[in-house]
Amino acid sequence: MDDRALVQAIRGIIGTDATDDDCAVIDDGEDYLVMSTDMLHETTDFPKGMADYECGWMAAAVTLSDVASMGARPICLLLAAGVDRSERVVEIIRGADECCRTYGCRLMGGDMDAHSECTLVSSGLGRVPRDCIVRRRGAQPGDIVAVTGTPGQAQAGLDGYAEFWEALITPRPGVFEGQALGRAGATAMMDVSDGLAISLHDLAEASGVRMDVYDAAIPRPAGVPEADAARYALFGGGDFGLLFTCPADVFPVGGVDATCIGRVSEGNGVFLDGAALAKAGYAHYWE
Amino acid sequence: MDDRALVQAIRGIIGTDATDDDCAVIDDGEDYLVMSTDMLHETTDFPKGMADYECGWMAAAVTLSDVASMGARPICLLLAAGVDRSERVVEIIRGADECCRTYGCRLMGGDMDAHSECTLVSSGLGRVPRDCIVRRRGAQPGDIVAVTGTPGQAQAGLDGYAEFWEALITPRPGVFEGQALGRAGATAMMDVSDGLAISLHDLAEASGVRMDVYDAAIPRPAGVPEADAARYALFGGGDFGLLFTCPADVFPVGGVDATCIGRVSEGNGVFLDGAALAKAGYAHYWE
Repeated sequence: MDDRALVQAIRGIIGTDATDDDCAVIDDGEDYLVMSTDMLHETTDFPKGMADYECGWMAAAVTLSDVASMGARPICLLLAAGVDRSERVVEIIRGADECCRTYGCRLMGGDMDAHSECTLVSSGLGRVPRDCIVRRRGAQPGDIVAVTGTPGQAQAGLDGYAEFWEALITPRPGVFEGQALGRAGATAMMDVSDGLAISLHDLAEASGVRMDVYDAAIPRPAGVPEADAARYALFGGGDFGLLFTCPADVFPVGGVDATCIGRVSEGNGVFLDGAALAKAGYAHYWE
Repeated sequence: MDDRALVQAIRGIIGTDATDDDCAVIDDGEDYLVMSTDMLHETTDFPKGMADYECGWMAAAVTLSDVASMGARPICLLLAAGVDRSERVVEIIRGADECCRTYGCRLMGGDMDAHSECTLVSSGLGRVPRDCIVRRRGAQPGDIVAVTGTPGQAQAGLDGYAEFWEALITPRPGVFEGQALGRAGATAMMDVSDGLAISLHDLAEASGVRMDVYDAAIPRPAGVPEADAARYALFGGGDFGLLFTCPADVFPVGGVDATCIGRVSEGNGVFLDGAALAKAGYAHYWE
């Protein structure tokens, strides 16, 4: 059973509207509050060689990215840290704090615990004006499909391409891009942290539309052999670009480095140069 | 190095105001938003014999208690669950969801991960009118000191007193009591989840006051031999009562089952029948 199958079981308990987006969405007068939590731990999320500072940065970044993908401004972040040696916590907090400050957010506390395996859980709160929020379900036929940055860099870094190690261990959440896209009129958005292909499927399913993307248009890590680069760009995880849809006349959005990679139409499914694209990417598996 | 020593190191990074209370406090117009996160895991927080449903309930309860201790109403809770077998998640979510519903909150999502040891991190958001928020630092000379419920029950349950097993595994956060105390004019508050004695010290230190409590006044678990009962009530952890101070004429507060156990005066320290009370209770230790 993978993450997505479990989500179906959980929807039966807590309802579908609570599990549709990268964040929970809460009414707050003229705004929405958005809230997200992410669990990372040593064996599966922190590549060997990462320093404690970088683990802290990454833990903050994953949640800031979720907030960004709703078009929201991050307000507050909390960090729960389970560590084997208490001394590690100070560097972890320093990394998370620095990441928060870089993106205009504030680390405001958390919890600590002794744990055999380093486990970091960050929880973030953001705010977005009602007319600027972007969810997964808003893509419309006729919209274009676009992605910020270059997907596949983190996976390239993980596979040993040293020039992308930095992209892997200190990911840059699209905090400013997400808000700019929300204001400009993006219709659907999520981050591509589980991989571009699976995120395309998630966005298409949530919106009830078909998406066609074109191989030649998809940016990919430079200096990596073509076969690897294409695979990383479509199926690699760990990048923090934003995948979004918007009316064609909205694109490009000032200040946002993004590439148009396809089109939205009526129907369902995701197609690469006309052929069905596998729904594959990073997913947690048990047993 | 224990929790409290580490907190001092972390204060140097993120600032003292962010670590003073059970929750982070965020301006929100006429209200404050409060936010808290708590990490629990199998070896240290879930007594043997607890079912997955009960682990989920407890994970929600600890965070609802933090929100309650600020006088706030809980709005939204997220749960990050790291489990060894994915099937466990469904019962864990069911327990957390039921706890949220019981206390007028809503479980709105979370994160899941494969983990060798069951690790649950709940994060909660609450709201409180500006004039009703209660922090740790507001106790005034002349106030009374009071506690809700009966401290020591959870520890008695852990030590084998079967009649308190339920109090241990399905703790009841003081969600309604906390809001009533905030509206009535409580001056300082926190929950006693780390134990009554250590919480008295925390409250007295944060407020810069002396607290005198009286052994005969402190409620303790019924049916437990006197020596054990007194120790549990002062130093046992896992209870979710609220420790608070308020002007004498505010007490008792309608609908709140609380016992006056002492007085606030100028000075510092915590005294039991005139003798210094040890600052001891539940704390995480490493190494």
